[in-house]
Amino acid sequence: MESLQRLSLHFSEISMFPFFDMAHYLCSVLSLREQPGTMEVALRSPIACWFSSMLCCFGGGILSSLMLAEPPAAFLTNTTNIFLASACWYLIFYYPRNIFYKCCSFLPLRLMLAGMKEVTRTWKIVNGVLHANSRFSNAWIIMIAIGWAKGAGGGLISNFEQLVRGVWKPESNELLKMSYPVKVTLIGAVLFTLQQTQHLPVSRHSLMFMYSTFLVVTKITMMLTHSTTSPFAPFEAVLGRMLFGLEQTSASIKGEACTSLNGSHQAVKPLVRESSDSSATSDAIESEISTVTRERRSKKAD
Amino acid sequence: MESLQRLSLHFSEISMFPFFDMAHYLCSVLSLREQPGTMEVALRSPIACWFSSMLCCFGGGILSSLMLAEPPAAFLTNTTNIFLASACWYLIFYYPRNIFYKCCSFLPLRLMLAGMKEVTRTWKIVNGVLHANSRFSNAWIIMIAIGWAKGAGGGLISNFEQLVRGVWKPESNELLKMSYPVKVTLIGAVLFTLQQTQHLPVSRHSLMFMYSTFLVVTKITMMLTHSTTSPFAPFEAVLGRMLFGLEQTSASIKGEACTSLNGSHQAVKPLVRESSDSSATSDAIESEISTVTRERRSKKAD
Amino acid sequence: MESLQRLSLHFSEISMFPFFDMAHYLCSVLSLREQPGTMEVALRSPIACWFSSMLCCFGGGILSSLMLAEPPAAFLTNTTNIFLASACWYLIFYYPRNIFYKCCSFLPLRLMLAGMKEVTRTWKIVNGVLHANSRFSNAWIIMIAIGWAKGAGGGLISNFEQLVRGVWKPESNELLKMSYPVKVTLIGAVLFTLQQTQHLPVSRHSLMFMYSTFLVVTKITMMLTHSTTSPFAPFEAVLGRMLFGLEQTSASIKGEACTSLNGSHQAVKPLVRESSDSSATSDAIESEISTVTRERRSKKAD
Repeated sequence: MESLQRLSLHFSEISMFPFFDMAHYLCSVLSLREQPGTMEVALRSPIACWFSSMLCCFGGGILSSLMLAEPPAAFLTNTTNIFLASACWYLIFYYPRNIFYKCCSFLPLRLMLAGMKEVTRTWKIVNGVLHANSRFSNAWIIMIAIGWAKGAGGGLISNFEQLVRGVWKPESNELLKMSYPVKVTLIGAVLFTLQQTQHLPVSRHSLMFMYSTFLVVTKITMMLTHSTTSPFAPFEAVLGRMLFGLEQTSASIKGEACTSLNGSHQAVKPLVRESSDSSATSDAIESEISTVTRERRSKKAD
Repeated sequence: MESLQRLSLHFSEISMFPFFDMAHYLCSVLSLREQPGTMEVALRSPIACWFSSMLCCFGGGILSSLMLAEPPAAFLTNTTNIFLASACWYLIFYYPRNIFYKCCSFLPLRLMLAGMKEVTRTWKIVNGVLHANSRFSNAWIIMIAIGWAKGAGGGLISNFEQLVRGVWKPESNELLKMSYPVKVTLIGAVLFTLQQTQHLPVSRHSLMFMYSTFLVVTKITMMLTHSTTSPFAPFEAVLGRMLFGLEQTSASIKGEACTSLNGSHQAVKPLVRESSDSSATSDAIESEISTVTRERRSKKAD
Repeated sequence: MESLQRLSLHFSEISMFPFFDMAHYLCSVLSLREQPGTMEVALRSPIACWFSSMLCCFGGGILSSLMLAEPPAAFLTNTTNIFLASACWYLIFYYPRNIFYKCCSFLPLRLMLAGMKEVTRTWKIVNGVLHANSRFSNAWIIMIAIGWAKGAGGGLISNFEQLVRGVWKPESNELLKMSYPVKVTLIGAVLFTLQQTQHLPVSRHSLMFMYSTFLVVTKITMMLTHSTTSPFAPFEAVLGRMLFGLEQTSASIKGEACTSLNGSHQAVKPLVRESSDSSATSDAIESEISTVTRERRSKKAD
């Protein structure tokens, strides 16, 4: 136990620069390159591609700066990191014969990079929470918001990052349909804020160690099993049902969920929303909406 | 007269927190819920729905912060107000059997809430004008702009609020087609700026009282008569014709307006734009545009 | 030589206010008016048209303020300049019989205005570089960025300026497809930053004189010859081929470029990206994308 304490303390003193930062840049640019259409943009306009890559690499800092009215262009003052990120961008997009991209896509290397990137996420969340605390002491909502923005900035601003590349998908964003990294960053921001406001009886370095381990393990497991389902899905379903009266969307699960809901509706009645008229209304609305959406989609697919 | 003075002074000392603020939150969330598609978003992603509601409730503060380079996330530091707004959001969207929503939609209550919301508008405009004045003394354009932004922020940022819910309507915004609340807030911002720069020989509390009364009375009249035409329409028509050579858009009124224009064109000739060639050009442009617009709309309607 | 020095020194002391500023406002509003659909917006909503014009006139200041977290609304404090720009806007859009617009469109006058506008560009770039240097000393990337933003702001924010008018074209922006003014401003920002960091052995006023002369001469030549090809096209082609392995897009030139590429691939091999497999991949991606784009465009054209 003593040695675990010492290990987590040493772990929390690791410097992110240069190796972990580089892994973060490589992963960000790799996932950017794998998005459809990006290679065409890279060939048509290197500057748009570079700017898009920088938004992926430094999105967290830019978003949290915007939220705190600090210069969002300040990330450009860190010349060394800009060079590092630009080198990653250049090598991945333009290295002859795509050799560099293929090397990075080699599974064991990719796993290592992804793991290291997840470690930088912990550091960013902690920095965000501490920075918000230094600006607005004990305003815990803003601590969560800035920690989240710093840790998952690239995802949260993805609509505008896509706009740089000429892609505009207003019908989806990371708030409407949260991806797993954005979700887990939000949970992390809540945990580190609770730790900072002393509602969590654990030292910061221990929490950093545990949270990073969790991030790395789940990330690597998800990559190896090609799984896209969030490990939080069951908790979300329970929480959604309890707080918002949500039923699971999958049709097959729906029946089952309804049954269990009917079985337990005496206990959780005040919070469950399953009355006949309200659900009738919302069903009508939903069906109307889904018709519109389907039509819009079918038009797109034409 | 003396007693009216004292009444308006007492009125200007009313605290907005908690009842008027709550009425504002309830009205904002109610009108959000009544927009098509919102209920589906609420069931699909409570976080997007919550963020959208917060943008409706605190839009004015966020927009004016952005314009003055103050932290736009600062509204999150006011934990009590965030809780109040979140409670309104939760009760309106997720209360079982929609009971809370139905209660609030009960006409007399709704009228009271709408009236109280209009009172908060006056307070916000005054705060915006005073705040801008404290930052940039005697810059009256910025005082109008910040007063307007603070009072009608939710409307002015509605394009981006919709984006959070996955809706994107670039063809319309509050500057292109101003709604009545946005217009009346602009007029209020001009009045309070004139008062502040001592061009209006009236005390601030009297102006607040008169402006609030006007807001409440027109709002309630419009709600009771289901009227959507702005009370300023005649003034706008005259002003538009005098300054910009605009003719009223409604086809039936158009002929009449043209006649009166022709009758008076000797007097206002330097300002009226009704020459044969220019109107021919603009007519050609307009008809071209309207064809395109009509086609686009008919495509949408398909 | 001595006299040229003195001339450039006097030139660098010219005040932009009021004549050069006015020329900038006139040119900006003229080019706004010439965009399709603007005249309809001007007749429908003068406020949206005015705001759009202000974004064109003061775009550089607004964008650089946003990047440095300075109040973006601060441009409204300069009442005189706002009045000047508003007068230009009013006269160009609403003067009876379009007389003012026709006067300004008279070629010799238009050439003079365009030349004067280009001079203001130099001043803006220099101000941007100096201002960034005073905020972040010796951060040369940010100096380039702010100089660029200040000099070409109206172009860089054109997507959002169009949004005010109800136009949304996400598929194109100034980073994806840079126009000549935006390109030449970027080069200017690089030059003045190099001068500021003392990597360019030339005095600032000489550089201002030379750069302005270049801007004015190329601008007027381009206007007289109705040329839209950038004078940098050959350099860009060489640079693009050397750094990014880009081939010229025009089909007719493509074959030629490929030949020259094959002929010289021994020399520049490490930087050229012309392997069989990588180009096969990117070709596949490109063709896939172009199919999608074509479909989308053909739908639009319907």
